Amino acid sequence: MKNVNNSKLKIIPLGGLEQIGMNITAFEFEESIIVVDCGLSFPEDDMLGIDLVIPDVTYLKDNIDKVKGFVITHGHEDHIGALPYVLREVNVPIYATKLTMGIIENKLKEHNLMRGTKRKVIKHGQSINLGCFRIEFIKTNHSIADAAALAIYSPAGIVVHTGDFKVDYTPVFGDAIDLQRLGEIGKKGVLAVMCDSTNAERKGFTMSEKTVGITFDNIFAEHKNTRIIIATFASNVDRVQQIINSAYKYGRKVVVEGRSMVSIISIAAELGYLNIPDKTLIDIEQLKNYPDEQTVIITTGSQGESMAALSRMAASIHKKVTIMPGDTIIFSSNPIPGNEKAVSNVINQLIAKGADVIFQDTHVSGHACQEEIKLIYSLLKPKYAIPVHGEFRHLKAQANLVQELGIPKENTFILRSGDVLELGEDSAVVTDHVQTGAILVDGLGVGDVGNIVLRDRQRLAEDGILIVVLTLEKYGNQVLAGPDIVSRGFVYVRESEDLMEEARLIVGDALEECMDKNITDWGKIKNIMKDSLSDFLWKRTKRNPMILPIIMEV
Amino acid sequence: MKNVNNSKLKIIPLGGLEQIGMNITAFEFEESIIVVDCGLSFPEDDMLGIDLVIPDVTYLKDNIDKVKGFVITHGHEDHIGALPYVLREVNVPIYATKLTMGIIENKLKEHNLMRGTKRKVIKHGQSINLGCFRIEFIKTNHSIADAAALAIYSPAGIVVHTGDFKVDYTPVFGDAIDLQRLGEIGKKGVLAVMCDSTNAERKGFTMSEKTVGITFDNIFAEHKNTRIIIATFASNVDRVQQIINSAYKYGRKVVVEGRSMVSIISIAAELGYLNIPDKTLIDIEQLKNYPDEQTVIITTGSQGESMAALSRMAASIHKKVTIMPGDTIIFSSNPIPGNEKAVSNVINQLIAKGADVIFQDTHVSGHACQEEIKLIYSLLKPKYAIPVHGEFRHLKAQANLVQELGIPKENTFILRSGDVLELGEDSAVVTDHVQTGAILVDGLGVGDVGNIVLRDRQRLAEDGILIVVLTLEKYGNQVLAGPDIVSRGFVYVRESEDLMEEARLIVGDALEECMDKNITDWGKIKNIMKDSLSDFLWKRTKRNPMILPIIMEV
Repeated sequence: MKNVNNSKLKIIPLGGLEQIGMNITAFEFEESIIVVDCGLSFPEDDMLGIDLVIPDVTYLKDNIDKVKGFVITHGHEDHIGALPYVLREVNVPIYATKLTMGIIENKLKEHNLMRGTKRKVIKHGQSINLGCFRIEFIKTNHSIADAAALAIYSPAGIVVHTGDFKVDYTPVFGDAIDLQRLGEIGKKGVLAVMCDSTNAERKGFTMSEKTVGITFDNIFAEHKNTRIIIATFASNVDRVQQIINSAYKYGRKVVVEGRSMVSIISIAAELGYLNIPDKTLIDIEQLKNYPDEQTVIITTGSQGESMAALSRMAASIHKKVTIMPGDTIIFSSNPIPGNEKAVSNVINQLIAKGADVIFQDTHVSGHACQEEIKLIYSLLKPKYAIPVHGEFRHLKAQANLVQELGIPKENTFILRSGDVLELGEDSAVVTDHVQTGAILVDGLGVGDVGNIVLRDRQRLAEDGILIVVLTLEKYGNQVLAGPDIVSRGFVYVRESEDLMEEARLIVGDALEECMDKNITDWGKIKNIMKDSLSDFLWKRTKRNPMILPIIMEV
Repeated sequence: MKNVNNSKLKIIPLGGLEQIGMNITAFEFEESIIVVDCGLSFPEDDMLGIDLVIPDVTYLKDNIDKVKGFVITHGHEDHIGALPYVLREVNVPIYATKLTMGIIENKLKEHNLMRGTKRKVIKHGQSINLGCFRIEFIKTNHSIADAAALAIYSPAGIVVHTGDFKVDYTPVFGDAIDLQRLGEIGKKGVLAVMCDSTNAERKGFTMSEKTVGITFDNIFAEHKNTRIIIATFASNVDRVQQIINSAYKYGRKVVVEGRSMVSIISIAAELGYLNIPDKTLIDIEQLKNYPDEQTVIITTGSQGESMAALSRMAASIHKKVTIMPGDTIIFSSNPIPGNEKAVSNVINQLIAKGADVIFQDTHVSGHACQEEIKLIYSLLKPKYAIPVHGEFRHLKAQANLVQELGIPKENTFILRSGDVLELGEDSAVVTDHVQTGAILVDGLGVGDVGNIVLRDRQRLAEDGILIVVLTLEKYGNQVLAGPDIVSRGFVYVRESEDLMEEARLIVGDALEECMDKNITDWGKIKNIMKDSLSDFLWKRTKRNPMILPIIMEV
């Protein structure tokens, strides 16, 4: 494929490396832009009180006339979660496979965005034309059904984006990844591959999802006399299918518990991605009608999330399920980095209640390890490699890997959010950098919490706040009331009365000095009180609470 | 050993299961109490602003006349860290091996407690008599030198406390664990074993510390042309020794960096636990006088702690060391649960700077795996098993393990903090429960931050605070000034002026209604303003900030 003119294809990640999870990449050629995925990320530990983080799509808004649509690889939050927010500003059609679209539509309904959003379901093997791009959806395997790789045909050449994938030769549902088609496209000549790097540090090959089904069968065979509770990712429909298979085989009824689990399972069942034998699924209210050893509960909470169903069971605050000695509880999941301690806390609570907790061989990853990554590159043989999806260490690991396959270092690009990579047959250069960033969602507020607010929250969290109030005489400079001190989150006041009394005297002295010196500037008065109180508290407690002086006048 | 009278030995953990890390256990027989270890723990994620957590030793204070001394197993923070705080209230002698005492004394100096504290250095193999107890120090291996197991001889029988240990047949420094003596004591008849459970979920045997030295040699051989930076635990003196050995072998100078690293290394060197060849150690200031490939930096920061030396290097805020492309950086450590993400962040920063990061085969655990635990029980053959050191899941794993060895379930005890286990030849029963708990240290304050303050900090962290101030007329009920609203950590006010203006009107209306209804009770007025503002903000933002009304009168 020759570049018909001298125009270059631009690849612009609008999230990703700096905001892990916010997978959103713009492909631009002349007057056409398509956007692959539109994910959200979850707040870092220092983003206190924040619920979600979504990408800054200023670049798309500024080029709205060019933007032809969102092309979605699969239905995980880090690939679709920001759609309901971004669509309000960038209202273009969405293209996705059936299950992926089902999950997106569920979100759009919640946000009342169904009517205003154009959507088109695409089948694997099918192509769509968007502006000067043609995009082909290619079957892959992942920890959610209906995942697709995208072959993006542009006048500058073909770019293949793997989405998140693994190679599963024996998938639970549907076909294995379409390696033949990848080979065929490779033969045509591929300009660049953007490949999932999540497991690029791991040697070997990710096990088939089916191996987990075998473990389930064994566990069910060994625990015929106890209730079984299994926590897993709500979106792992194949995993749920395998639990249902084992349950059916061993004559157990299945309860699905946890809001997101119930929601995704019903979408998947409705769209034909789950095969549930008659009378196998029962409502949680019916649990009491069956002996424990004839039931299985599939639940959310595999990450130790404090409000998820399993965590509530472990903490004895679940209304319908009480953990009992002898319960067999399976974690069919690995802790996502950062959740290790929360997961361990839930496990400890469950074991303390006498439950048996199993977490060995009950999970496989949804991402390709090193041998699978090598396989994809060997089928596609691209000129350029652009590792995607992962932290810097993972992208770097893939970069090292493809070097072994003969792609030279200078043809491998680790892009930062906003980097504009201009690709042509003879060159690939980062030529520009556009605005990107993380927009914080807190409750209904989108973007109204920024760095200043976060810094305040961090300071409040660390040492609390002391408020100094006083009333001054208008026009004069007489103190009519106060200074009083009220504190929150600083010390337990009843047991620190002496300290607080001393603090009041310190502030009173500072204020008196201001009056004596005829200082009338409120800013100055506030600063003097603040500094004297701050010095005193640091000396006495080695703490640095926020100090907020408020002056009223009468 | 026959129980000479009907008195029982009481074993009372004053920390541990509920406060992981606060290892402190009282052994009581009639008029004698000895205390094994006195550790601190680090704050849980929800303990905002807290620096350290120490045990509530009310039980020891209430029985101070009986308490004969602290017997310390080894020098890690979770076994000695609370001593400077507890000694102020329970001033009894400390018994420990030489290096352990060296580290304790360093702490006592910092807290100005050297003069007031009796200390005695004990050798492995030596015994001491405290009240009716005899305590024998037995050589073990661990990730800090000079660790000891304790054989506690009481009139009710012998209890062996392993401390934290592993079985290292080829230790880097000093002898292997004294398995012969453990066998000999086992032959006498052991009443109970209290054994380290940290790795009780792991099969097999923990590798010898020496294997890490071999890895170091290989890495040094393979990276002859780059600087090498190695992060490890400050207290792992043997690890540091092996780094020094490799450095010497490959003609590199060694710099030790990070406050705790410098401090422990100098104690260990002074006491003869480190063998440093002449002219190998250089000061960080001399680094610039040597080519990079002739230097090694041993540093703190292996856990991604934000202020540790390696983290500062990674963030480019270290004053003396700048990470350069090509630097070889070794993490000689595993992340402690909860630190995974912080460690990964540092690794990403280092890789982004072009460094090579190595973390495979560069660490071994200091704790016994299943086969080692079985070995200890098989040498000691106790009547009762009391798994210690670990989370509930780990203690339970050891309990399951010893059942396989023939110790019946009813003879195994997982004790909670404060449980009083009464042990005799013919019985073991938890008969009582004494006061224990976690005392929070924040700056200089010990115990002045409790649940109310923490809850306030959590709420402040989540959504910030709004302060409503107004001035009322004394005796009358006239509003002289306000209501004004000041917020911190809620929204970025400049971009939310409309919201804040509406909030002021809402509070103003609520106040006016109070005045109209002649409500004069300040408590009521405050509550009415608070509720109306709270409702308004929830409806508009789905946030729940702290609202603090303050009324002044003039």
